[in-house]
Amino acid sequence: MLTASAYAATSADAPLEKTAAERRDLGPLDVLIEIKYAGICHSDIHTARNEWGGTHYPVVPGHEIAGIVAAVGDEVTRHDVGDRVGVGCFVDSCGTCEACVSGDEQYCVSRVVQTYNSRTPDGEYTMGGYSSHIVVTESFVLSVPDSLALDVAAPLLCAGITLYSPLRHWGAGPGKRVAIIGMGGLGHVGVKIAHALGAEVTVLSQTLSKQDDGLRFGASHYYATSDPATFKELRSRFDLILNTVSVNLDMDAYMSLLAVNGALVELGLPEKPIEVRGFSLAANRRSLAGSMVGGIAQTQEMLDFCAAHGIGAEIEVIAADQINEAFDRVVRSDVRYRFVIDTATL
Amino acid sequence: MLTASAYAATSADAPLEKTAAERRDLGPLDVLIEIKYAGICHSDIHTARNEWGGTHYPVVPGHEIAGIVAAVGDEVTRHDVGDRVGVGCFVDSCGTCEACVSGDEQYCVSRVVQTYNSRTPDGEYTMGGYSSHIVVTESFVLSVPDSLALDVAAPLLCAGITLYSPLRHWGAGPGKRVAIIGMGGLGHVGVKIAHALGAEVTVLSQTLSKQDDGLRFGASHYYATSDPATFKELRSRFDLILNTVSVNLDMDAYMSLLAVNGALVELGLPEKPIEVRGFSLAANRRSLAGSMVGGIAQTQEMLDFCAAHGIGAEIEVIAADQINEAFDRVVRSDVRYRFVIDTATL
Repeated sequence: MLTASAYAATSADAPLEKTAAERRDLGPLDVLIEIKYAGICHSDIHTARNEWGGTHYPVVPGHEIAGIVAAVGDEVTRHDVGDRVGVGCFVDSCGTCEACVSGDEQYCVSRVVQTYNSRTPDGEYTMGGYSSHIVVTESFVLSVPDSLALDVAAPLLCAGITLYSPLRHWGAGPGKRVAIIGMGGLGHVGVKIAHALGAEVTVLSQTLSKQDDGLRFGASHYYATSDPATFKELRSRFDLILNTVSVNLDMDAYMSLLAVNGALVELGLPEKPIEVRGFSLAANRRSLAGSMVGGIAQTQEMLDFCAAHGIGAEIEVIAADQINEAFDRVVRSDVRYRFVIDTATL
Repeated sequence: MLTASAYAATSADAPLEKTAAERRDLGPLDVLIEIKYAGICHSDIHTARNEWGGTHYPVVPGHEIAGIVAAVGDEVTRHDVGDRVGVGCFVDSCGTCEACVSGDEQYCVSRVVQTYNSRTPDGEYTMGGYSSHIVVTESFVLSVPDSLALDVAAPLLCAGITLYSPLRHWGAGPGKRVAIIGMGGLGHVGVKIAHALGAEVTVLSQTLSKQDDGLRFGASHYYATSDPATFKELRSRFDLILNTVSVNLDMDAYMSLLAVNGALVELGLPEKPIEVRGFSLAANRRSLAGSMVGGIAQTQEMLDFCAAHGIGAEIEVIAADQINEAFDRVVRSDVRYRFVIDTATL
């Protein structure tokens, strides 16, 4: 058993504090990773503060993990000591159901084991990436290409794949008009990836305050949703809209922006139910869809794609003792665009 | 100008009564149809009673029309006097937008002209099929194959295409599990068509009262949604669910029945907004979609498919003076399965 240093929340309203996390002994297929960077995802905050319910304390958040392999089990073949690797939102699945077999482990019918706050078959709860080390079975460890710096790669493991997967599934590419609602931690990566895939990208943001960044990341158009003219001008415009905002929006207004056969994909998971009128769907045969990260093979594909196109997250690197302040700033959308913890400071 | 006999609603709370409808003189591309049968669709009732708003009185409902060509304009090439023909939910569209060019006239950006209660470019309002005659431009007139009786064909022009189009769009066929919510005027045709397409069909109905019919129409399974065990047993089961019910359902419960990549398509258009949780969509990458009848070419394809598979609607033929009683019975779901007006009684 290895004792790693970590930052944990001990209750819904307590700040995170330094603690120790026990990591299991290496099994034959396990990889011990020395974590270098861990991104801060809004899900970490929801979980630490028990905003979705079901949090088991203490919880060590973090599912945007990049690091170096420190040791491997006897039967590991995919990774070697010294390899640059990443871990995303889940660390195990059944491996035998239809979803797992087809590479959609995130939809495993026997439930995936999430990287943190997830009960494993032996009754323990997983502890995430705000930590110096983690042990993960090799098939859930991704390779980070050499040309991707570990700090900007870390957020790709959740934010990157969360956007890449629906962009691929709904066919974003040349000739397709894609809109991204919200240009925060998720949205800014979506702009970069959608542009690199060849789609015509539009950002729909509350204001134009990040317009220069959006155009630099690859957007062709940038609209303020606080301006009602936006919705008139863009009526029936888009083939695909990815909603990265986690507050409830006027969904009928956004659905009206979809062309025939268009889909709006919810990625922000608002707290309250989404309301949409039947007519908003029937007109133009529109779909309101959801998507949850992506499978392991597709996550590797995403990392390779990002490396090939020079795409990393835009980050602010922080020390561990800034985590609580960073949480508050994420909630205020006061970050450009993702906080990444330098785990050397743990 | 031809004066046809018709049944019209003169206000939201008045019963329909006998009246006359003026039909335009035949233009060079027009077809004069002697209507033989007109199906009663729930939309007729919503419109006659102004439940969706926007009804212009007097209104002659009816967009499930089957009849015989009585005369044709000078330049008509598609239809001849004596041909067996049908007219569905719309009678014109711009013909030049992307939707029209790709055969999705129902999503025309310049707005289709609906068969009734729709303002035409010359400022008149269209009058529908509860009438002895109608004049329609030839490209919006469908051919009814000889093997399809006109009375059971009439409801296919709305109910049939409303189900056929999403079944085709979402790939219902061998190896696909399709559920139909509600076995009324729309649902029972959906069961027949989905079965004929080769899908495994399940009916989800409030009770088992129509189970024998459902199995006879081609369903392999029939479940009562009033039994909570249904939702446990069928979790993540279906590739496609078509919702034909027009009251608001517990959408999260129904979404939970969709497999990975599954879609639930709203056809019943409930009055209140549909509510669905983001997690219900994200799990299994599900879609909540809508669909509105189908294009002209696909409607012809549907009629040919139904003829080839011996599919007609299950109907109760009524006389014109039973229309008001039939409206009340439709609202009570007291019809097996579609009322069809014998227009000889007008």
